[in-house]
Amino acid sequence: MEYKILSTIKSPDDVKKLNNNDLNVLCDEIRDCIITTVSQNGGHLASNLGTVELTVALHRAFNSPLDSILFDVGHQSYTHKLLTGRFDKFSTIRTNGGLSGFMRPLESEHDPFVTGHSGNSVSAAYGIYKAKNIIGEEGFSVAVIGDGAMTGGMAYEALNNAGGNRNKFIVVLNDNKMSISRNVGALSRAFTKMRGKPKYHNFKFAVTDFLNKIPFIGKPIENLIFKIKEGFKSLIYKNNIFSDLGFNYLGPVDGHNIDSMESLFNIAKKYNRPTLIHVITTKGKGYKFAESKPKDYHGVSPFDISCGASDGDNTTFSYVVGKVLCDMAEKDDKVSAITAAMREGTGLFEFSQKYKNRFFDVGIAEQHAMTFAAGMATKGIKPYFAVYSSFLQRSYDQIIHDAAIQKLPVRILVDRAGIVGEDGETHQGIFDISFLTSIPGITIYSPCCYSELQSIMNRSLSFSNITAIRYPKGTELIHFDNAFSEDFTWLKNDKNKCVVSYGREFSLAYAAYKKTKQFDLIKLNKVFPIEENIIKILKNYKYVYFFEESVQSGSISEKISAMLMSAGYKGEYHAYILPNDFIPSIKVKDAFKKYNLDSDSIIRTVNNG
Amino acid sequence: MEYKILSTIKSPDDVKKLNNNDLNVLCDEIRDCIITTVSQNGGHLASNLGTVELTVALHRAFNSPLDSILFDVGHQSYTHKLLTGRFDKFSTIRTNGGLSGFMRPLESEHDPFVTGHSGNSVSAAYGIYKAKNIIGEEGFSVAVIGDGAMTGGMAYEALNNAGGNRNKFIVVLNDNKMSISRNVGALSRAFTKMRGKPKYHNFKFAVTDFLNKIPFIGKPIENLIFKIKEGFKSLIYKNNIFSDLGFNYLGPVDGHNIDSMESLFNIAKKYNRPTLIHVITTKGKGYKFAESKPKDYHGVSPFDISCGASDGDNTTFSYVVGKVLCDMAEKDDKVSAITAAMREGTGLFEFSQKYKNRFFDVGIAEQHAMTFAAGMATKGIKPYFAVYSSFLQRSYDQIIHDAAIQKLPVRILVDRAGIVGEDGETHQGIFDISFLTSIPGITIYSPCCYSELQSIMNRSLSFSNITAIRYPKGTELIHFDNAFSEDFTWLKNDKNKCVVSYGREFSLAYAAYKKTKQFDLIKLNKVFPIEENIIKILKNYKYVYFFEESVQSGSISEKISAMLMSAGYKGEYHAYILPNDFIPSIKVKDAFKKYNLDSDSIIRTVNNG
Repeated sequence: MEYKILSTIKSPDDVKKLNNNDLNVLCDEIRDCIITTVSQNGGHLASNLGTVELTVALHRAFNSPLDSILFDVGHQSYTHKLLTGRFDKFSTIRTNGGLSGFMRPLESEHDPFVTGHSGNSVSAAYGIYKAKNIIGEEGFSVAVIGDGAMTGGMAYEALNNAGGNRNKFIVVLNDNKMSISRNVGALSRAFTKMRGKPKYHNFKFAVTDFLNKIPFIGKPIENLIFKIKEGFKSLIYKNNIFSDLGFNYLGPVDGHNIDSMESLFNIAKKYNRPTLIHVITTKGKGYKFAESKPKDYHGVSPFDISCGASDGDNTTFSYVVGKVLCDMAEKDDKVSAITAAMREGTGLFEFSQKYKNRFFDVGIAEQHAMTFAAGMATKGIKPYFAVYSSFLQRSYDQIIHDAAIQKLPVRILVDRAGIVGEDGETHQGIFDISFLTSIPGITIYSPCCYSELQSIMNRSLSFSNITAIRYPKGTELIHFDNAFSEDFTWLKNDKNKCVVSYGREFSLAYAAYKKTKQFDLIKLNKVFPIEENIIKILKNYKYVYFFEESVQSGSISEKISAMLMSAGYKGEYHAYILPNDFIPSIKVKDAFKKYNLDSDSIIRTVNNG
Repeated sequence: MEYKILSTIKSPDDVKKLNNNDLNVLCDEIRDCIITTVSQNGGHLASNLGTVELTVALHRAFNSPLDSILFDVGHQSYTHKLLTGRFDKFSTIRTNGGLSGFMRPLESEHDPFVTGHSGNSVSAAYGIYKAKNIIGEEGFSVAVIGDGAMTGGMAYEALNNAGGNRNKFIVVLNDNKMSISRNVGALSRAFTKMRGKPKYHNFKFAVTDFLNKIPFIGKPIENLIFKIKEGFKSLIYKNNIFSDLGFNYLGPVDGHNIDSMESLFNIAKKYNRPTLIHVITTKGKGYKFAESKPKDYHGVSPFDISCGASDGDNTTFSYVVGKVLCDMAEKDDKVSAITAAMREGTGLFEFSQKYKNRFFDVGIAEQHAMTFAAGMATKGIKPYFAVYSSFLQRSYDQIIHDAAIQKLPVRILVDRAGIVGEDGETHQGIFDISFLTSIPGITIYSPCCYSELQSIMNRSLSFSNITAIRYPKGTELIHFDNAFSEDFTWLKNDKNKCVVSYGREFSLAYAAYKKTKQFDLIKLNKVFPIEENIIKILKNYKYVYFFEESVQSGSISEKISAMLMSAGYKGEYHAYILPNDFIPSIKVKDAFKKYNLDSDSIIRTVNNG
């Protein structure tokens, strides 16, 4: 497609100049551009297709960057990027050095805050609003948040805080009725009720037009109109959760009608109190495959536009987790599975169908998920909480306070551990080793292959304290039949150099070991706590090399190094590990090379040592 | 007072046998017993005095331990302890080896889950409920949660999850209109509205009696009554936040009328859906000093009953923080202060009065607090988030994702860092070093005295990335005039032994140093990241001793040890540090002795080395 209008949009000002017909063309072009680019680079599709008109309407009603517009999670910010001077670079999205797939302040003055983890937008936007107040800066602050993110406590904390005063603060609820897959919890029912009454268009004519016709001039009249409107609203609406949280509730409005939304946004700007606008969008809008199966098109790998996205390579660590967990549940009726709105991503779809009463999707609610699991464990249930490493960061306090103090055998299945690649700095799973090892009584495993994963999951059935089993995104690098069920595995060539590693990184060390036979190799199967026997063995080597896919501070390497020091080790110790820094979007393979963790680097390092 | 009735209560069954007159006497005796004990041991007072009748009513309507009753936070569980066979041991509360000041499963089968951190009760109780379902165990699961805890996102996540299905699950909202000091946010306004209509007693006669008179026999009638009741209710109530979260809402009911509460609890037991009972209590009820100034009697040190609690020693690290922050705000109009419902505890009362528009109490909402601060920092505001170390655990993801990725200069004032003493395992601040050091770009300080605290706070005004300043509960151990403003301080006696320490522990090492002059001493002023210069200096010592008040795994000692290893250090390295374990209630002084961190232990250790 030729992008006749889109290519002329250099800033949101250009969007404001378009007539209705041009706007329709623009939306078509944006959809085509997003579908084409995502089919090549992979990325978030359905969420972006659902928010094309919403974003256009926002950029017509508000003046970014004077007004801050913050898209929660940011996986629906592609249109925003296209309208704020990034059309030329859009083909680089999610590549090393290219545009981020989320909001990123370094990239543009139109991205007021980093996004990636769900539910931070209201907090950040309210912080920006209050800061503007203090320094006397003009401009609105708007958070655009999905119905899924609303199941997370962080958004609620922020709404309660912002709703507590007469703040001129605006929240747009992007209600696609889905979150990532289907929405869960009571709130989704409440939203359905709100959507139902009255119909969007009735609402539009009855309220919007009525209010639009009365000019807002000066406080007294504004207050009068405000009172009339509140009275009017109370006839058609009852209270809802947002009014209890102090927000003036507007909507619902059709999220694919630019004109309706623009009107409502302009009304919201005139209130001197927190206002929430409820917008109904259709996930995947405008691409038939995505519209009919939005959950399959949430995040996708590159695909053929005419055929739709494939299911990709089925066998991944997540897939194996799902399969094994089903087998375990079949044999043991205490096995239960918990996810925080990541049923598909963590491989639990089959489990959710087969074991309905032992499957719990608790919403995007990692704090609750962990404590809920701990509560179940007090009664002898064997809970498995499958969660991405980077999202598990939100459960840190609950792991300590609600699971570890009582020594409850919650099993954490830490998915996406290590470098995840294209999603970039907000999603890398490089901190879990550091924060989990601080937790008293925890045991950590990090299988390198499917057979080891299966073995440790089965053994975990009888564990009596908290356990984390961490594994990377995607597939095993080398297939082993070995279950690696001892605490560690020692591969000997009777050399004076020993390489130590675990998890995915072990596969790379093993390839180097097989190729050169120039060093001995230890694989940590139980990664933490560290066995004293390993220290005794390592003490006898002149050279120890540790290769690890984790930030340095708090790493296993650091701990083994300290133990060797206490044990009076006099040889040389070399750690190759990720720096204490964030890792932007990069292919996993390239990251291994960059940080000297690939097989060639291991061979070179050990040879030179 | 002679405890004529209280002393006969061996289990909740005994409470069920009492007549109204006996119940009134029992409540008087419980209040007397709580006031007397807390005046001797210190502890939570106002919250416990407010929930005497509520707890009695709960133990009459429910059958603990068959029914699980979980008191959120647990600082209102003293009556529960007195009624569940712990009257004889009650005088040991909050002492080493004695009863915990919170709920503790190790202590009694009537304590179904650990409490301490706010808002975990609904998650844990719902986990217990679902586990009971799976294993087919009888009994209710009841969470008793305060209005303050309801400002935290974790409780909301749990309500949304539990409200999503027709669960026979019960939540009691203990609304004392206060949380710890005054309640904040929109929700407190919504609660006020709910409390207002209709009056408790009208409600009682209109609804409770009406329903009580119709027997619940079989499903059809139950459903009929249910529908009648819902219809009836919708006439008097509008929707509220709890109905949107899927809960049947009962109340409000007078929380000092046992009879009314018991009736409502018995009604709630008959519903086949999630039910929330709104109970209104008066914090501090029955002790005039506590009732008139409940915030001063939330947590208290030992006091004289006839005169009331004193303000205690005014000068503490928290007090100094408050004073210094006021001075800073006077000079720099970008300085702002944030607390998560701990205005008094963190010393911010004066600031909140003097700089109203730059002070933010966001509720018990540590996730939001951090991101809100980060949002402000994007606009050049200088936010100081004062928070207890153990509660900061809830901000871990937000520090990484919302502050550190963008290198935003949020200043975290980490109060109660290190051992806190009597509050026990749920409140020790022994993990912050481990989890904060994993965060890219953070700088950590740990002043040992007020002058150093003041100095580093003032210097932090110009910092350009995230900073944590951590300090212990209570007072400085040794007064120094020195601001310790270099990165580290090296005190030399030209010995071959060097002791390294920081923070409060440094004072103990310094006392040992002054007394013996048998070793050199390094104080880390900037605790993290660790300066290479320190490693260079330490390399020249034959013996290095590290004394640190933090869990071992992830400690500064571990990191310095690893750095010395990399630098090829060949001497002896000895770390004295807290084990990777929890520390129950213990006096701070006794804990130092137990873990070989007091001055005498330091002298003995270094002499023997």
